Amino acid sequence: MRHRTLARPRYGDTDQGGVIHHRTAIDWFEVGRTELLRDTGFSYAKFERDLKLRLPVVEAHAEYKSPAFYDDEVLIESWITDVGRVRFTVRHRIVDHVSGRLITTGHTALACTTFGGRVTALPAELTLALHPYIEQPPATGRSHP
Amino acid sequence: MRHRTLARPRYGDTDQGGVIHHRTAIDWFEVGRTELLRDTGFSYAKFERDLKLRLPVVEAHAEYKSPAFYDDEVLIESWITDVGRVRFTVRHRIVDHVSGRLITTGHTALACTTFGGRVTALPAELTLALHPYIEQPPATGRSHP
Amino acid sequence: MRHRTLARPRYGDTDQGGVIHHRTAIDWFEVGRTELLRDTGFSYAKFERDLKLRLPVVEAHAEYKSPAFYDDEVLIESWITDVGRVRFTVRHRIVDHVSGRLITTGHTALACTTFGGRVTALPAELTLALHPYIEQPPATGRSHP
Amino acid sequence: MRHRTLARPRYGDTDQGGVIHHRTAIDWFEVGRTELLRDTGFSYAKFERDLKLRLPVVEAHAEYKSPAFYDDEVLIESWITDVGRVRFTVRHRIVDHVSGRLITTGHTALACTTFGGRVTALPAELTLALHPYIEQPPATGRSHP
Repeated sequence: MRHRTLARPRYGDTDQGGVIHHRTAIDWFEVGRTELLRDTGFSYAKFERDLKLRLPVVEAHAEYKSPAFYDDEVLIESWITDVGRVRFTVRHRIVDHVSGRLITTGHTALACTTFGGRVTALPAELTLALHPYIEQPPATGRSHP
Repeated sequence: MRHRTLARPRYGDTDQGGVIHHRTAIDWFEVGRTELLRDTGFSYAKFERDLKLRLPVVEAHAEYKSPAFYDDEVLIESWITDVGRVRFTVRHRIVDHVSGRLITTGHTALACTTFGGRVTALPAELTLALHPYIEQPPATGRSHP
Repeated sequence: MRHRTLARPRYGDTDQGGVIHHRTAIDWFEVGRTELLRDTGFSYAKFERDLKLRLPVVEAHAEYKSPAFYDDEVLIESWITDVGRVRFTVRHRIVDHVSGRLITTGHTALACTTFGGRVTALPAELTLALHPYIEQPPATGRSHP
Repeated sequence: MRHRTLARPRYGDTDQGGVIHHRTAIDWFEVGRTELLRDTGFSYAKFERDLKLRLPVVEAHAEYKSPAFYDDEVLIESWITDVGRVRFTVRHRIVDHVSGRLITTGHTALACTTFGGRVTALPAELTLALHPYIEQPPATGRSHP
């Protein structure tokens, strides 16, 4: 299952090329995985507060397929792959909300650490919560469909 | 005395109006007061780490006189006014480094707090360190010359 | 009448003080006035595109009353004052959405310019559209209640 | 040859995890390739202005090896690989300036487009200017040493 949420680019997200600056994809990936986690009942804010664990980003990747424009809402699709003992990957596909035009694909990989920064096993309740959003990556070819 | 430091706007700081987005002034004010503090021998990083105190911004004000442009270095002038028991003000004047054209004036007011957020007296050694950069505001008229 | 919209701070909006960095208020002011304009039927995106005019920020002011926290939705109230021939002011009041605790007050002043940067009169249809959101500032005392 | 430049993280770049937020790597990559281009005598500002061409980012990738911290200067190494007809890749290695500790590796791929967004051939003078900074990627193994 893919999680879907909307975001609206601000004027401050544009650049003088007349499009949304590529850095904004990193923000949208963050919104996508935050809302996916919230939907599992496992809000990241609560995760940090209650379990005293963090999920720092250990890898981020974005491919820019076409520009996003000021004020045009984007649809952020997010899903999970590659759940390991200490890390997992969230994959993203961002499209124009009205036309469905593909804007950006990418992923972020997150590792579980203590507040002190030591890598540690993903809590079983998190792995379980992620389950509905896990998708097997395609057996061949492009990793970010 | 006024402290002077340079900053160079990035492409990500521009907006589709073809100028530097107004939010960037807040970043420049931060650079200005951070480098002023460093020059007093009282780096803010060290301040937080050693004294376990913070200087959160309690007021920020910016007046935009003319645009800043991509890649054109700006000169940030910073000085101190209104040093009180628990707070002080840093005033800023940002000009184009090459032409001297006035871009933005403004100020930020900082209060001293514990890590728990309780307002507390400015440490005497900070007040002392700020001394060379204190300027009396003009007796009349415009507060941000 | 005051316009109301919600925003949710992202992890990237926090700082190592454990709160939302003060720069984020500038983003929230932008969201507030963008959504206010949209509600008048006068979206800023359309304004730029159709009238070939801009509304650059000429003044921004924020007073920080208490911290905002990661993932806690804020309510942004926005209203209009001081509509002149070429500029107007949008005032903002940001509160915690759940508790109503006051976080930040402030304003941004916008001037109307051509794409070439020349200051020009506010279009009559914009002034008219703003009308429902105009509030007289209090006759005395604090300008940002 | 690798280009080297320094950047200093601001308080606004930190997050409540007590480290520099991962989005900042995208800014550092931008600083790295902007300064590399300036050193070739081919400043990107001039490139846009004179040739009426842009170099939008078509791919961005970052691997986070260890945290960066507030106010600790980082050294950004940048070099060029994979120069094609319409695109090239800038690779980056970011280390702590004092200790040399590896913080982030990654790359951005840039394509040449007209102001209208049509992909077009890299100008010969750009390809030539990049020449001193071209490095062959290692024949095997890790692509971001």
